Amino acid sequence: MKILVTGFDPFGTDTMNPAIEAVKRLPNTIVGAEIIKLEIPTVFGKSAEVTREALVKHDVDYVLNIGQAGGRFDLTPERVAINLDDARIPDNDGNQPIDVAIKADGESAYFTQHPVKAMVTAMKNVGLPASVSNTAGTFVCNHIMYQCLYMAHTEFPKVKAGFMHVPFLPEQVLERPGMPAMSLEDITRGIVAALEAIVEFDGKDDLTIVGGQTH
Amino acid sequence: MKILVTGFDPFGTDTMNPAIEAVKRLPNTIVGAEIIKLEIPTVFGKSAEVTREALVKHDVDYVLNIGQAGGRFDLTPERVAINLDDARIPDNDGNQPIDVAIKADGESAYFTQHPVKAMVTAMKNVGLPASVSNTAGTFVCNHIMYQCLYMAHTEFPKVKAGFMHVPFLPEQVLERPGMPAMSLEDITRGIVAALEAIVEFDGKDDLTIVGGQTH
Amino acid sequence: MKILVTGFDPFGTDTMNPAIEAVKRLPNTIVGAEIIKLEIPTVFGKSAEVTREALVKHDVDYVLNIGQAGGRFDLTPERVAINLDDARIPDNDGNQPIDVAIKADGESAYFTQHPVKAMVTAMKNVGLPASVSNTAGTFVCNHIMYQCLYMAHTEFPKVKAGFMHVPFLPEQVLERPGMPAMSLEDITRGIVAALEAIVEFDGKDDLTIVGGQTH
Amino acid sequence: MKILVTGFDPFGTDTMNPAIEAVKRLPNTIVGAEIIKLEIPTVFGKSAEVTREALVKHDVDYVLNIGQAGGRFDLTPERVAINLDDARIPDNDGNQPIDVAIKADGESAYFTQHPVKAMVTAMKNVGLPASVSNTAGTFVCNHIMYQCLYMAHTEFPKVKAGFMHVPFLPEQVLERPGMPAMSLEDITRGIVAALEAIVEFDGKDDLTIVGGQTH
Repeated sequence: MKILVTGFDPFGTDTMNPAIEAVKRLPNTIVGAEIIKLEIPTVFGKSAEVTREALVKHDVDYVLNIGQAGGRFDLTPERVAINLDDARIPDNDGNQPIDVAIKADGESAYFTQHPVKAMVTAMKNVGLPASVSNTAGTFVCNHIMYQCLYMAHTEFPKVKAGFMHVPFLPEQVLERPGMPAMSLEDITRGIVAALEAIVEFDGKDDLTIVGGQTH
Repeated sequence: MKILVTGFDPFGTDTMNPAIEAVKRLPNTIVGAEIIKLEIPTVFGKSAEVTREALVKHDVDYVLNIGQAGGRFDLTPERVAINLDDARIPDNDGNQPIDVAIKADGESAYFTQHPVKAMVTAMKNVGLPASVSNTAGTFVCNHIMYQCLYMAHTEFPKVKAGFMHVPFLPEQVLERPGMPAMSLEDITRGIVAALEAIVEFDGKDDLTIVGGQTH
Repeated sequence: MKILVTGFDPFGTDTMNPAIEAVKRLPNTIVGAEIIKLEIPTVFGKSAEVTREALVKHDVDYVLNIGQAGGRFDLTPERVAINLDDARIPDNDGNQPIDVAIKADGESAYFTQHPVKAMVTAMKNVGLPASVSNTAGTFVCNHIMYQCLYMAHTEFPKVKAGFMHVPFLPEQVLERPGMPAMSLEDITRGIVAALEAIVEFDGKDDLTIVGGQTH
Repeated sequence: MKILVTGFDPFGTDTMNPAIEAVKRLPNTIVGAEIIKLEIPTVFGKSAEVTREALVKHDVDYVLNIGQAGGRFDLTPERVAINLDDARIPDNDGNQPIDVAIKADGESAYFTQHPVKAMVTAMKNVGLPASVSNTAGTFVCNHIMYQCLYMAHTEFPKVKAGFMHVPFLPEQVLERPGMPAMSLEDITRGIVAALEAIVEFDGKDDLTIVGGQTH
C-alpha cells in the first residue's frame, strides 16, 4: 500500500508550518505501507495541481493532507469538505476568492474517505487529544481536501482522500497568549498513529468492526 | 412576506433554551414581514415533521431555525448543512443516530438560502458580535437545517431555508465557568436584526449589492 | 450609609469603558444606602488622588472601585491587592511603571474589606455568572484597589474598600473574536446586586452568617 | 550552588501530575548547580513539613516548587503568594480549609525571591510559551509557595523561594475538550531553562542587568 501525505508551507505572518514540519519527520514506512511525503503551496488551485501530479506519478491508495488550524486544541481529522472558497486573507500567491464554488460540476460537499473515528481513537490511544471536526473552513485547507476528494471521485477511483488539521507549535504561540499548542514530536506521533489506523482499517468498512461507527 | 421562525425546546441538563425563549419574544411584524413563531422538539425526525406542518399550513417565504450552541461567543448564521446525523448524546426522545444519512436521496450538503453575510453585518451594526459559521454540527440543529433545505429544494420551491446558532444565556453558565453567554435581550435583538437583513435582502442576489459577498 | 462607587474612563484602543458606563446607570439609593458615583482617570497616582478627594468630601462607609477586565467571562470581586505597579502598556497619561512598589510603607498586600463571597452569591442569585478573583493584575486596577485599601488602613478607618472587575461589553468584542462579553444592563444589574450584598452584610462578619465563608 | 526542586503528587481525579513527572526527569546538575528533587504531598501543612525537612537536611540556596495549573496555556512563574488557604476541593488528606490564614504572624503576602521575568525570557528563548502569573490561587500551590517564602524570611535567610505552575499533560486532556496541554518533554525543558536563569541571575539584582525589570 502507498500513502501520499502532503503538508502546507508556512503562510500569513508565520515562518513555520507544523504541517510540513511534521510530514518531513514521518517514517518512510508505516505498518508496511510506503509513505510518500510532499510539500504543497498554500495557494488555491496550485496546491491541487501539485498534489494531482503526485497522484499521477505515484500509484497511491490514500492521500492524507495535513494543515495547520491555529486555535485548535487537538488533532482533528476532518469529516467533510464543502464546495466553496471564501478567503479571509490572501493565500501565498495573493489570491483571495470570495464565495466561489471550487468545482462547477462538483458535489456541494464530499465526505472524507478515511476512517476518521478510528484515527481519533488511535491518536487518543497514544495519549494525544483528538476529535473529529465537521469543518475544514473555507480557506486552502478545505480547498485541497475538496479537490482531492473531487479527484478521487472523478479521476482516481482507487484513491481514498482525507484531511487532518493540527494545532500551532509552541514556538508559534510565544506572542499569542491564550492560544493552545502541541509539540512537533506529538503532532508527528499523532499523524503516525492516524496513518496506522488508516492502514489497519483498510478494506474494513463493515459497521460491526468499529462499533457501528464509520463514515 | 411571511417568515417562519422556529426555536428548540430545552435539552440535555438544561431547563431553558435561549432559542425558543428568544423566538417567543420576537415582534409579530418586522419591516412589514409577518413573523410566525413555532416551538419545535429537540428530536430527530419529529422536529422536521412539526416544521413541515407549519410550512404546509402557512404560505411562508422564509424559514429560519434558531438553535443553541453552548460554547460559542457570538451569533452565528450557518453556511451549510450536511447529510449526516451523528449524535454524541440522545435527543429528547432518546434517539441517538450514529453516522446515518438524513435523506438517502438528498445532496451531501445544502448551502443556506439566507444572506448570511448581510445578516452578520446587520447584527454587528446593532452592536452584537456575529460571524458566519461553517458547521452546524451533526446533532438536531444540523438535522433541522438540512431537512428544511431538503424540503425547500424538493417540496416547497418558494421557501428559502436557513439556520442560526445563538450562545448560552447568562443563567445557563452559572455553573459552567469559562463559558461565554449572551443576554436574552441581546439574542432577541440579534435575531430581529438578522430578520431585517433577510427582508431587505429579499430578491437581491446580485453580487454587486453586497460588495461581491453573497451567501 | 454612604457608598462611593468609582468607574474608570476608557483606555487603550477602546472608546468606551463598561466600568464608568455601568456606574453612571446605578440608582442613587440601594436598600437605603446613598450611592455616590465618580468617574476616575485610568492613570497611576491621579486615580487615587481623585478618589481621595471624594473620600474627604463625602463621609462614606464603603468605596467600591469598578474596572474592566477584558477577557474575563464573569463579574469578579477581587480578593486582594498587591503592592506593585507593573504596566504592560502606558496608562492614559503615558506612565508605564515597571516593578515599582505603590507605597514604600504599605503592606505587601491588602485583603479586600468587602464580603466578596456574599457579593458573588448575590450576583448569581440574579442569574449572572460571578466568582471571586485572586488577582487584580498589576495595572491601574490593582493600583486603585491597593491605594484605597492603604487609605482605609491608614487615613480613613471608617471606610471599607474593595474592587470588582467586569467583562467587555458586546460592542467591544465586535473585532475581537473569541472574547467573552456581558451586556451593560447585566453588568449594571450585577453591580446593584453586589452593592445590596454589601449593605445587607454590613456589620455581620460572624462566620455563621455565610456558612463559614467570609472574605 | 544547590537548588531544591519539589513536585506535587497527583490529586483530584488525575492519576498523574506533570509537576512531579517533570521534576523526576530533571538532570542532577544545571550550569554547575546541584539539583535536589523532592516529591511532596498535595496536602495543606504536610507539604510544608516535608519541604522543611529537606531544607534542614540539604544546605540549599534556592527552592523552586512546581505545581500543576489545569487550564493554563503556558509555563507561569508566580509573582506572589498570599496568606490564605481557601480550598474549593479537599486535598489528598481530606482537608478543606475555607478562608484561613496560613500563618498568624506572617505577612499578608510575600513576593517571590526568584527572577521571574528572567525565567520567562529564558523559557521563551527555548521556544516555550511562558508568562509571569500574579496568582497561585488559594489551594495547596499558593500554600507551599507562601510557606516556603515564610520559612525563607524567618528561618532560612540563605534560601530564596519561588514557585512555577505548569499546564496539563496531553494525556490529561483526552477527556477534557478545550483544555490546553504541554508535553512532558517541553515542561521539563522549560523548568531546566528556568533553573538556568535562576543560576545565571544569582547575585545580580541590579536593575540595569535586565532592562529595568526585576522580580
